[in-house]
Amino acid sequence: MLLCDIGNTSFHFLDSDEDYKKDVKTFNPSTVKEIVFYICVNPKVLNILKPLKNWVDLSVHVDMSKYYETIGIDRVMACEDIGDGIVIDAGSAITVDLVKSGKYEGGFIYPGLMAMSNAYKNISTVLDYSFNFELDLDKMPKNSRDSISYGYLKTLQSEVLSHNMKIVLTGGDAKEFAKIFTEAIIDERVVFNGMKKIMKKANIC
Amino acid sequence: MLLCDIGNTSFHFLDSDEDYKKDVKTFNPSTVKEIVFYICVNPKVLNILKPLKNWVDLSVHVDMSKYYETIGIDRVMACEDIGDGIVIDAGSAITVDLVKSGKYEGGFIYPGLMAMSNAYKNISTVLDYSFNFELDLDKMPKNSRDSISYGYLKTLQSEVLSHNMKIVLTGGDAKEFAKIFTEAIIDERVVFNGMKKIMKKANIC
Repeated sequence: MLLCDIGNTSFHFLDSDEDYKKDVKTFNPSTVKEIVFYICVNPKVLNILKPLKNWVDLSVHVDMSKYYETIGIDRVMACEDIGDGIVIDAGSAITVDLVKSGKYEGGFIYPGLMAMSNAYKNISTVLDYSFNFELDLDKMPKNSRDSISYGYLKTLQSEVLSHNMKIVLTGGDAKEFAKIFTEAIIDERVVFNGMKKIMKKANIC
Repeated sequence: MLLCDIGNTSFHFLDSDEDYKKDVKTFNPSTVKEIVFYICVNPKVLNILKPLKNWVDLSVHVDMSKYYETIGIDRVMACEDIGDGIVIDAGSAITVDLVKSGKYEGGFIYPGLMAMSNAYKNISTVLDYSFNFELDLDKMPKNSRDSISYGYLKTLQSEVLSHNMKIVLTGGDAKEFAKIFTEAIIDERVVFNGMKKIMKKANIC
């Protein structure tokens, strides 16, 4: 069974137990001949996939009344999987969603690593630093690199930890963010697991 | 007496009790003939000002051992003025600095409104919204505009309020941020007041 989670930058495939990524800019989905069960948050790619009969959109099987209309379908799948807790998907955007006993409580979106780094750099060349994930977030910084790192990381950490819930980390930058969410569980498959749960509910497999 | 606080986007003048701004891209500082006491965080403008004899750099009069080498001089001036509390300067960058009984405790830098809005927009066109400052930050959002607004504003609010200190707001977007820091004092002159204090200490006036 082939699953695919399509984001703003890549097609993320799961083929049985092996996962791999293809670049959104260069990958042609019509080259895949087997059936692909997919979700997609990328409006351009969604238009390309719609006429391809072997690409099956799983979003139609989700009870969206629990969520809201414009929520990314990858966030929905992650929430369907975790059941209880906060799920942080650290990709080109960082999505943070809260689920209590299977009920979706809401969530927010924060810029991903690259987007935030560019945001600082575009304000001024003197703010062009890589983020320091080893920073001590219990102390206010006294140098430029840490001032930016703290601005990006401590603000996110303060808000997330204030909810006192189990944290699940997923997405391409999950390992980096595990440095500031030391109690979090890393689960790279949370979106795929949600997709599988939806397929079971819909009797697709 | 003419004071000037030069940032990344504008020359901010204070002439006696009247203040006005000039765009960094178009304003020619050599057209000013009177003495200007200035501070400047913009490296390009600083190079232009150095040979101009009537532009007097106040940064040389600051005891920088209290701060750190690469801190913006505007932040130093604001800290010199407030003496105790947190000062938030909401401009193209948002700087947050903490002073306890005259001692600088450190600070951080967060992207300003425009920079953060562009950061979201550049991730995906579906994240292109203006921020909602009227959002209820006590509830996790359930729509796209509020998800982004919460991501930008609640994270900053959580971190700043965790210090339980008096908050002084300054900078071009101070009034917007007063909506999420309802207990804060708005003081548009905090940088200029710091500059005046430094001038007094240095016996310049």
